[in-house]
Amino acid sequence: MAMHSQSPAGRGPAADPLTVGVLGATGYTGREVVRLLAAHPSVRLVLATSESEAGGSLASSVAGAADVPLERLADADLASCDAVLSCLPHGLGGEWTTRLGAGLAVDLSADLRLQALLARSPAATAARSEPARWRGVADGGGGDGPPVGATAAVPDSGTAALAYGLTEHHRERIGASRIVANPGCYPTAVLLGLAPLLRRDLVGGTIVANAASGVTGAGRSPARHLLFAEVAEDFRAYGTGNAHRHLDEMLAGAARLGPSAPEIVFTPHLLPVRRGILASLHVPLAARLDPVEALSFWRADYEGEPFVRVLADRPPTLADVVGTNVAAIGVATIARTAAPALQVFVAIDNLLKGAAGQAVQNLNLMAGWPETRGLQ
Amino acid sequence: MAMHSQSPAGRGPAADPLTVGVLGATGYTGREVVRLLAAHPSVRLVLATSESEAGGSLASSVAGAADVPLERLADADLASCDAVLSCLPHGLGGEWTTRLGAGLAVDLSADLRLQALLARSPAATAARSEPARWRGVADGGGGDGPPVGATAAVPDSGTAALAYGLTEHHRERIGASRIVANPGCYPTAVLLGLAPLLRRDLVGGTIVANAASGVTGAGRSPARHLLFAEVAEDFRAYGTGNAHRHLDEMLAGAARLGPSAPEIVFTPHLLPVRRGILASLHVPLAARLDPVEALSFWRADYEGEPFVRVLADRPPTLADVVGTNVAAIGVATIARTAAPALQVFVAIDNLLKGAAGQAVQNLNLMAGWPETRGLQ
Amino acid sequence: MAMHSQSPAGRGPAADPLTVGVLGATGYTGREVVRLLAAHPSVRLVLATSESEAGGSLASSVAGAADVPLERLADADLASCDAVLSCLPHGLGGEWTTRLGAGLAVDLSADLRLQALLARSPAATAARSEPARWRGVADGGGGDGPPVGATAAVPDSGTAALAYGLTEHHRERIGASRIVANPGCYPTAVLLGLAPLLRRDLVGGTIVANAASGVTGAGRSPARHLLFAEVAEDFRAYGTGNAHRHLDEMLAGAARLGPSAPEIVFTPHLLPVRRGILASLHVPLAARLDPVEALSFWRADYEGEPFVRVLADRPPTLADVVGTNVAAIGVATIARTAAPALQVFVAIDNLLKGAAGQAVQNLNLMAGWPETRGLQ
Amino acid sequence: MAMHSQSPAGRGPAADPLTVGVLGATGYTGREVVRLLAAHPSVRLVLATSESEAGGSLASSVAGAADVPLERLADADLASCDAVLSCLPHGLGGEWTTRLGAGLAVDLSADLRLQALLARSPAATAARSEPARWRGVADGGGGDGPPVGATAAVPDSGTAALAYGLTEHHRERIGASRIVANPGCYPTAVLLGLAPLLRRDLVGGTIVANAASGVTGAGRSPARHLLFAEVAEDFRAYGTGNAHRHLDEMLAGAARLGPSAPEIVFTPHLLPVRRGILASLHVPLAARLDPVEALSFWRADYEGEPFVRVLADRPPTLADVVGTNVAAIGVATIARTAAPALQVFVAIDNLLKGAAGQAVQNLNLMAGWPETRGLQ
Repeated sequence: MAMHSQSPAGRGPAADPLTVGVLGATGYTGREVVRLLAAHPSVRLVLATSESEAGGSLASSVAGAADVPLERLADADLASCDAVLSCLPHGLGGEWTTRLGAGLAVDLSADLRLQALLARSPAATAARSEPARWRGVADGGGGDGPPVGATAAVPDSGTAALAYGLTEHHRERIGASRIVANPGCYPTAVLLGLAPLLRRDLVGGTIVANAASGVTGAGRSPARHLLFAEVAEDFRAYGTGNAHRHLDEMLAGAARLGPSAPEIVFTPHLLPVRRGILASLHVPLAARLDPVEALSFWRADYEGEPFVRVLADRPPTLADVVGTNVAAIGVATIARTAAPALQVFVAIDNLLKGAAGQAVQNLNLMAGWPETRGLQ
Repeated sequence: MAMHSQSPAGRGPAADPLTVGVLGATGYTGREVVRLLAAHPSVRLVLATSESEAGGSLASSVAGAADVPLERLADADLASCDAVLSCLPHGLGGEWTTRLGAGLAVDLSADLRLQALLARSPAATAARSEPARWRGVADGGGGDGPPVGATAAVPDSGTAALAYGLTEHHRERIGASRIVANPGCYPTAVLLGLAPLLRRDLVGGTIVANAASGVTGAGRSPARHLLFAEVAEDFRAYGTGNAHRHLDEMLAGAARLGPSAPEIVFTPHLLPVRRGILASLHVPLAARLDPVEALSFWRADYEGEPFVRVLADRPPTLADVVGTNVAAIGVATIARTAAPALQVFVAIDNLLKGAAGQAVQNLNLMAGWPETRGLQ
Repeated sequence: MAMHSQSPAGRGPAADPLTVGVLGATGYTGREVVRLLAAHPSVRLVLATSESEAGGSLASSVAGAADVPLERLADADLASCDAVLSCLPHGLGGEWTTRLGAGLAVDLSADLRLQALLARSPAATAARSEPARWRGVADGGGGDGPPVGATAAVPDSGTAALAYGLTEHHRERIGASRIVANPGCYPTAVLLGLAPLLRRDLVGGTIVANAASGVTGAGRSPARHLLFAEVAEDFRAYGTGNAHRHLDEMLAGAARLGPSAPEIVFTPHLLPVRRGILASLHVPLAARLDPVEALSFWRADYEGEPFVRVLADRPPTLADVVGTNVAAIGVATIARTAAPALQVFVAIDNLLKGAAGQAVQNLNLMAGWPETRGLQ
Repeated sequence: MAMHSQSPAGRGPAADPLTVGVLGATGYTGREVVRLLAAHPSVRLVLATSESEAGGSLASSVAGAADVPLERLADADLASCDAVLSCLPHGLGGEWTTRLGAGLAVDLSADLRLQALLARSPAATAARSEPARWRGVADGGGGDGPPVGATAAVPDSGTAALAYGLTEHHRERIGASRIVANPGCYPTAVLLGLAPLLRRDLVGGTIVANAASGVTGAGRSPARHLLFAEVAEDFRAYGTGNAHRHLDEMLAGAARLGPSAPEIVFTPHLLPVRRGILASLHVPLAARLDPVEALSFWRADYEGEPFVRVLADRPPTLADVVGTNVAAIGVATIARTAAPALQVFVAIDNLLKGAAGQAVQNLNLMAGWPETRGLQ
């Protein structure tokens, strides 16, 4: 890979500075986007919306931010921006992002992700048919309608209009798109960890994906179960029984990364930390792998990647990645079982590589800039 | 089950009060044992050892404790006690526990656990042969010698001399034994969760057991990786690749609970909390189970148990159990996979049900007292 | 002191078991009251109100609680209870508590505290006149009207109808009262620490009282500033400029404890912990004190007290008291300044000695039972 | 003030890049220095020492660091560096720093601070005589010998050879010095907060300075009282009775900032957070101040300062500053007391403005570079 600063197909580099608007700028993700953009040399943040703090100033809400008024979404003149990064919640993000005119957009909600993953490019169609399992679910029972969660039609400007923004794996399409559906934090961690096995078609059974996330992943709206006194000294699973709303995205994203669509049982947990996700993946293998050979797949696939770090000798921890846009990956072969299996551990900062950081990475790609701009 | 206050086979109730000594009384587990005994109506704590605080007083080290001098182990007159609870580290506990004369003993180290689990009672031998997988490992390559970790010979006073102290499942043997090998904290959580499936021989594949523990599980000796500034806001896996030293105990313990010995891949994680373990178990099934039927197994097996709580509608969290001797269990059937599987979640307080609490539960059984004495 | 199990003046011991209702039973304080009452041998909890969980069961909200329905306050038949413990918020507690008929009541809100402290018993009036400073404020400008915050008139059944429930210092009056205004958590810590100096009239200048509290002190209603991600890794002062709403209570309470009313500058801070208050008090002295002599005042005043622990050689920490009804106190003489001064450190569990525990202590006194019943 | 990028008196700008060595590079402060230098455009880190990790590589110990071998101090060729930043512990830092030849040095230990503060420049001597209180203590009883803690003689190359590095207040001297004694974290917070009052001679009594620090302030060496399980959910005072070892520095530093030397009672506390200090200062005033006027002093004195932020309407919290080199200050006038007093709250990141950040600020000054280089 490591083709990380290519120019977008059929489009010159973007205006510099690019004027950018941030929708939903005062949640945890929005604030992180604002912080990143404040340090981005080619971006000028000119518009910010917040329903809860409308009337205030972005600078007084986020230290170091531009002195831009916080407006209600309904009052914002989005047409004044070259690009928009939407941190609106699920159900709103897709609609507002696709409503924009000619500008670039990154939608950090879940709304457009399945649509982006299921879009059939000619190449993709030729290469393989969509796996029935997740398509059936995503389509709400087998029909041909829009996938669950997608509330808006993407203007049909060719197959490249909308891309799924798992940057390291879909660069070309992202660079050629006008709208990017930014991946969820859990799917980002899981898919980055699984990709080398999926690409080589080495998965030999149901993947058991446990993950634990810091509480910023649950948003900044007050809720009793997120109070300090409820979260501290506790640890809990949620979305049990393989019922997490990100599962469709994970399955569709995995199907996109290789010739076979794997089964995944995904169980998220809530950690008493502010930021960070650790995914602990158990992957049955189609054939036994030598530990050195196994590690070589991740090393080869992520060589030269500025934001992926493959660890040779230990699993990653949150401390390796919090505050950075890096995904850190470790791999261990499993002893003491008859059938071959691997463990893959992936750590990311849920607000950066799992949201705002990857969004800026994608914006850079769309704008034709070096992918690392503003992120180091 | 729920036969939780039977009198010990062939032995009258113990002296009341029983004089008790605690070895290694100032570590996290030792302090918890001391706290429990201070509130136990039938016990008088008369002896306590501590290498790091020898010369001091137990009362000034543990609030509410008896005013007993802290002695070095080598100086302690263990023969003066009716019973000993040893919180000595692995490698020491077994030796000191078995060195005692006629008194009762609970060893909280790992030293005697495999020996206790592998001991062949006539009944056990008749019922099933030992599974090859873990015996081979435990025996250090297939021989018949003492299992790894057992550093001392248990005086041969019959098959009931030594019991594995997973109270809810080995009551009869515990009540008839003089020495109990108290289970490890992780095996306690995992085995309590798996037992209903193991007893019914319903496991249909490799069990993926992820667990996360608070830091008191790692002991009270200063170590850089346990400093607040290293642990807070972090989360990490360890013992990866199925290499945790408790795996043998888990495999042997599981084999004891049913007709077939399962494969387990166990991965512990370190949580930024002080106490508590949550085990998240993925169990492939031999046959598909209705959710209501599945839950009924745990309900039936643990009905009337004072220290096991089966939750009907949600997975347990640490907050359900910390500060108590209770194991809380939740079960979920897994959707969206071809092969049938269950999730079992178990929460315990690693220092209580995972150590000191279960030790007192076992002492009560050995002494012929109600199992809940001093624990509610 | 230490007269801690006297029978109430002119009243026989209460019915045993006493039927008790808890108002506001599902907040942090309410839940703690419920937990304590569940273990209280002379109390039967028969009624519980909760606006947010009305229709549910107390047992499913608080582990180990009686299986009592959660009712709306307006629907509850308070007359069915021998006693009521009100954990209703400020502005509601006083009204509902005084509305009761003949039963006993402890109001844990701030509503009745000033009224209780300012009530002039004949003895008090003889002993000293009320200090002008805090009376002026509390009376809303110098008049004779009801103090700020008191929203209800206490039925005039003699001077002993209403008591301020700082147990160790107002036992006689509490035992003779029908209604107790339970002290605030901060005033409890500060007043217990200052009392020995106030009683001896040794304070020689403005007391600087810094205190830090765990977040349960701020209640269980969802609020953004109490979210885990806002509180963790942070520490903040609030109510700065001597503007905390508990200051009046602190000043009036201090005036009640000795011949002179001191000046206090009180500054609370919010700690990233769940429970516990540490008050760090700087007290200018009227005369220089020898360290041993200084400590002897606290030792003498709190000798035999079951719930006050005076430490000889170190300041107390939260870990000394969390989970208990104990106030731990340490004293240090200040070096390197021209004028004499002392430091007094007081640690309490804000939910126990600072709320629910002291409430039960007071209920025990009112009921004529040993003060420690249900609290050890 | 705000004269923050002046060139050093009588010395041209330093070589660019400057080759720098870091002594004690793997403690919390050392790692922070390494991180800052890795991002500093004019510095090349060429040498790093670590006794505990000697033989390893800096890059594998600190993510993003230069790939420099970790050497034992005794083996390091310090002469190869243009500048040295010493994070060695107290008792070692001063000796090694002054042993250097002609290069620049910042000593982050306490060893040289008193010497730097007590050094009599002609101007200082003319302006005022040293206050007796702290000099007596610092000098070990009134003599003229080296101050307590200073273990090495600074080569006598003029009055400007050694400066106390409270950057905002001693810029000129720092820029003209070859060695800087970097202030302690607590003195930095306290002195930045007090300076505007000290300069105007407005302090009217004993200052009560409470402060709370995250645990990284206590270093990275394993110690039981710093274990996660000991620190989490706890809060404690230490160095009580005005006995903290930083008090001399605080008193001497305060005396340096204005015409009168104040009395300070300083009480540090240990917070269950990783980073950050909040100082809560109670300052009796010589005369009553209007709140607006009071605030204007801090605004005026710190106007244009890149690393001091004066808040208009609320006290600062750790979240305002952690991860930055900023000191955030808030001021409140105290109500309800007879004598006038102010509260000053100061928040800093103990590892940045309280150590590594200010060290780099000082290095920039010594090197003749803009003071903010590498710090934004």
